[in-house]
Amino acid sequence: MVVEHEIKVRVRYADTDTMRVVYYANFFIWFESGRIELLRSRGVVYRDIEAMGIFIPVVEAQATYLSPARFDDELLVRTRLKAMGTTSVTFENEVYRLPEMELLCRGSTVHVVVGKDGKSMPIPEALRARLSA
Amino acid sequence: MVVEHEIKVRVRYADTDTMRVVYYANFFIWFESGRIELLRSRGVVYRDIEAMGIFIPVVEAQATYLSPARFDDELLVRTRLKAMGTTSVTFENEVYRLPEMELLCRGSTVHVVVGKDGKSMPIPEALRARLSA
Amino acid sequence: MVVEHEIKVRVRYADTDTMRVVYYANFFIWFESGRIELLRSRGVVYRDIEAMGIFIPVVEAQATYLSPARFDDELLVRTRLKAMGTTSVTFENEVYRLPEMELLCRGSTVHVVVGKDGKSMPIPEALRARLSA
Amino acid sequence: MVVEHEIKVRVRYADTDTMRVVYYANFFIWFESGRIELLRSRGVVYRDIEAMGIFIPVVEAQATYLSPARFDDELLVRTRLKAMGTTSVTFENEVYRLPEMELLCRGSTVHVVVGKDGKSMPIPEALRARLSA
Repeated sequence: MVVEHEIKVRVRYADTDTMRVVYYANFFIWFESGRIELLRSRGVVYRDIEAMGIFIPVVEAQATYLSPARFDDELLVRTRLKAMGTTSVTFENEVYRLPEMELLCRGSTVHVVVGKDGKSMPIPEALRARLSA
Repeated sequence: MVVEHEIKVRVRYADTDTMRVVYYANFFIWFESGRIELLRSRGVVYRDIEAMGIFIPVVEAQATYLSPARFDDELLVRTRLKAMGTTSVTFENEVYRLPEMELLCRGSTVHVVVGKDGKSMPIPEALRARLSA
Repeated sequence: MVVEHEIKVRVRYADTDTMRVVYYANFFIWFESGRIELLRSRGVVYRDIEAMGIFIPVVEAQATYLSPARFDDELLVRTRLKAMGTTSVTFENEVYRLPEMELLCRGSTVHVVVGKDGKSMPIPEALRARLSA
Repeated sequence: MVVEHEIKVRVRYADTDTMRVVYYANFFIWFESGRIELLRSRGVVYRDIEAMGIFIPVVEAQATYLSPARFDDELLVRTRLKAMGTTSVTFENEVYRLPEMELLCRGSTVHVVVGKDGKSMPIPEALRARLSA
């Protein structure tokens, strides 16, 4: 079973640039919202994870831009758990313009789980269980 | 004597919006850079202040926009210490387009000094001395 | 009758800073969303306004910060039409943390209506009618 | 000969997040500054390019994060022209913390040249000449 989740976002003026399209870096912010809400949909509140001294920073990020998003567009951000290793997690994202579901951007992020000391640690079992389909 | 400092910033694509001008909220980021560098010019490294458990958050912010800044404009951000109370500091900022020194934006921020507990505290004497003309 | 509108936003990692609270400039982005959605709730799509060659840039912005917002907080942003002059509009905003409705931030923005030439113009009657209670 | 350029940036409060490090998406903004200044160092003012109706949007972006950048760090952003195709350009970036030149982030962006109609076009000869070592 695929672990995935969808959220909707509205393009704000702040997200756009002089080319009158969404600035490329801002898609990564939507990827963040997508991950956080995918986790929430599995019963994982990332804020609570951090309160336990566990952090899941990004170690790799990638995006391919197919078509621009513009001010006031309503977008669907789909996030999928792609892979879980011993200490790492990979998410994939797609951003579509609604209502026609035109694919605008595809990307992914790789994360490692680290403790308060900043050192890599195995994904806690409770988290792994929540993210297993 | 006026305690003031000037920095130059270059408008990036990321700073602009669909109106092809700098997004209004982003001027406040330049105000931040202006304050940090004014402090540095007086021998105060804000990072070190925080390392001592002292924080100087913004409690009020205000800006008036006279003329737009555009991508690739080179700007001068002038920051002035306007007032120092027992527990608060006020900075004023002006943003000019170079080289003609056209005034684009004027603003100010009010800050309070707080300790690690988040409670307001008097401005430390060492800091006050550095900021006195 | 008061013309006002409420939206909910979730604080993202991207919105926060090293003080572990929302960066002060980012409240102005939520003010933007509040205004855009207030307009939409009155049948005014700001994107369509711009497509007609009418722009409503910010000429003044102000905020007072009472209490910090933190990562993952759910916030309510209330936006109110405060005043309409011949060529200007003023909005007021309040940001509350949900569910307890603690007031975190209060602010306002003043806008002028300008045409494609960047020159100030009277608020179009159709827009004025939509915004009249 | 390698076409490359270096700029320095100072980490601002606005760039950081609740993990007390620079938010991952913000490195892409420094990549932008790096590209723009590499072009300028070769006599190409990107703003002038756009004024001629030629745009060079990002179609792919990628970054690997090795070590965090923190508030007030002074960084060196190195940008290198990696490849020029008929219609595309690839830049590589590295971000180092000064003064120790610790490598924090490596990334790249791929761009296509498009005209006002948004359609891909060959890189203009004048631009190609400027970017040739």
